[in-house]
Amino acid sequence: MKKNILRLKIIQIFRKHLLSKKDSEICTDYLIKAELVEAKSHGLVRLKMYCDRLQKKLINPRPKIKIRKISSSISHIDADNSIGFVSADIGIAQAIKNAKRTGIGLVAIKKSGHFGLSSFYAEQAVKKNLIVFCFTNAPPALAPHGAKKSLFGTNPICFGVPTGKTPFILDSSTSLINRGKIRQAHKLGKKIPYGVALDKSGKITTNAKKALDGTQLPIAGFKGSGLAWMVDILSGVLTGSNHGGKIKDPFDDFSGPQNVGHLFITIDPKVFVGKQFMKEIKKNIKLVKRLPKAKGFSSILYPGERKNKLYKKNLNKDISIPKKILKEINQLHAV
Amino acid sequence: MKKNILRLKIIQIFRKHLLSKKDSEICTDYLIKAELVEAKSHGLVRLKMYCDRLQKKLINPRPKIKIRKISSSISHIDADNSIGFVSADIGIAQAIKNAKRTGIGLVAIKKSGHFGLSSFYAEQAVKKNLIVFCFTNAPPALAPHGAKKSLFGTNPICFGVPTGKTPFILDSSTSLINRGKIRQAHKLGKKIPYGVALDKSGKITTNAKKALDGTQLPIAGFKGSGLAWMVDILSGVLTGSNHGGKIKDPFDDFSGPQNVGHLFITIDPKVFVGKQFMKEIKKNIKLVKRLPKAKGFSSILYPGERKNKLYKKNLNKDISIPKKILKEINQLHAV
Repeated sequence: MKKNILRLKIIQIFRKHLLSKKDSEICTDYLIKAELVEAKSHGLVRLKMYCDRLQKKLINPRPKIKIRKISSSISHIDADNSIGFVSADIGIAQAIKNAKRTGIGLVAIKKSGHFGLSSFYAEQAVKKNLIVFCFTNAPPALAPHGAKKSLFGTNPICFGVPTGKTPFILDSSTSLINRGKIRQAHKLGKKIPYGVALDKSGKITTNAKKALDGTQLPIAGFKGSGLAWMVDILSGVLTGSNHGGKIKDPFDDFSGPQNVGHLFITIDPKVFVGKQFMKEIKKNIKLVKRLPKAKGFSSILYPGERKNKLYKKNLNKDISIPKKILKEINQLHAV
Repeated sequence: MKKNILRLKIIQIFRKHLLSKKDSEICTDYLIKAELVEAKSHGLVRLKMYCDRLQKKLINPRPKIKIRKISSSISHIDADNSIGFVSADIGIAQAIKNAKRTGIGLVAIKKSGHFGLSSFYAEQAVKKNLIVFCFTNAPPALAPHGAKKSLFGTNPICFGVPTGKTPFILDSSTSLINRGKIRQAHKLGKKIPYGVALDKSGKITTNAKKALDGTQLPIAGFKGSGLAWMVDILSGVLTGSNHGGKIKDPFDDFSGPQNVGHLFITIDPKVFVGKQFMKEIKKNIKLVKRLPKAKGFSSILYPGERKNKLYKKNLNKDISIPKKILKEINQLHAV
């Protein structure tokens, strides 16, 4: 579908679900951006879910988002059950402001929801020449090391750095595979890779539905489990949001709002070494890139480069939408 | 060896290498603590290396460590090529002070050296009821994703949280195995596990020497490589220290000081939710611990619990020292 037409349609859908014009545009642009970077699991496949939750009043279409100033560096945001995109957009703007003012920003958001890709928010801080961490927790998907039941989300660690060129943005879930990819495989009737998830009984499965009912495996066993736990503490416990497996699955559980938490830490890289920082980060990247390549590699990419290339490649193309999703969009639009 | 006697001996060895009484005690206590938590790869096995570098003036025994105040939250420390223990000890004390004052502390240390286990410093902040990140970079040991040569260190991610009981302290290297463990296997003539390291030609090896000459594998491929890169940027590029594979191996390379960097971020967990934080973190841990256990597990431990148990178990016991290390200690003491 032509991007303009698609964009207008999605905005209209959000408007029909009572979001303001501005918030409808924010949500739409993040969803389309996920498509452009080919993170389709965070794109249009989620539109119906967001609308379902808006309709059931589990997402507040007109939230009164409150920013509480704790210091020039620290802010606490009550998102009033807003859609995640909107509160995270406000939150990262505040974190940028705080770091620009004092060298370091710390912004916690409570009572929010799924906000798409963490890298979207990291990118905004990096484009303002800041280093940034973005943390968010998610519904149970991973079993803690030693347990046979899911409790942690796939809880990503997202870290961004300005490079003078394409932003360095690591956005790494603590699971071997993103849950969104399993959801999409399930939606499209495809299999998932071997060895990334277990069924209910604890056996490895390539069936997407069984994996969703079972549990995913963390990266590197105890280490990945610990990193997922860290993200749950930072996003959930610290911010005053749900944690410890209490975040509801947005697709399956309509018994209440999600109360997802986000935490943004922003650092002005100039505080310690001034302008030297940009010289050194460029040198750092050059040193890595010129290493001898492993078999099958013609170049070494830093985190964020691949997504950036995809974005540029897709920016002026039509967006291809699977039939099933297209039908959903048309139904939502027709209401 | 009796702990008291060993402690006195090591202090005397550091004194003979011109460290002040206070600094000798600091270094000794960190080395012995590594033995007590059974992280032997970070314990006495390194004593001779530190002494060799002190003797060759690559570690400055009487550094003039300067703390530059950037704001009430942010400090930059020039360690003047001190032994890592001493500058990190000063750095974490400063980071604690800053967070107690403003809610958030950010302390960068440049011109430092290997500081033992990151968890030692995290623990100090956690015992003052702070959340803490400790980052440090290290000599080349891991090949970036797509490269066939080492460049990143095993660059640990260390994160601590107060729990009201044993501190939650995740201290996770970004390699599948700690380099210290390979060094120790080499020193003691033992094999390393299969699948954690490659030899020079890129083949999996269980020979410790070949692994040291080759490259270690990161956790989770591109993700672990990205996390190691993140730690290199935070510890090296941001602080004004060596980075991009330029940190010298302390055991093999005596051509100059290491110029390792450390970065500490401290957060007062009460800033957002006040006293509720301690209630919620206890609830979080309880929720995880009561999950049904996987086969082979009788309980679920959080990061830091195992080391804490080992510490308590070993605290009043003699420290067993391999013959080879004992000989080194006696030789260093006899000089």
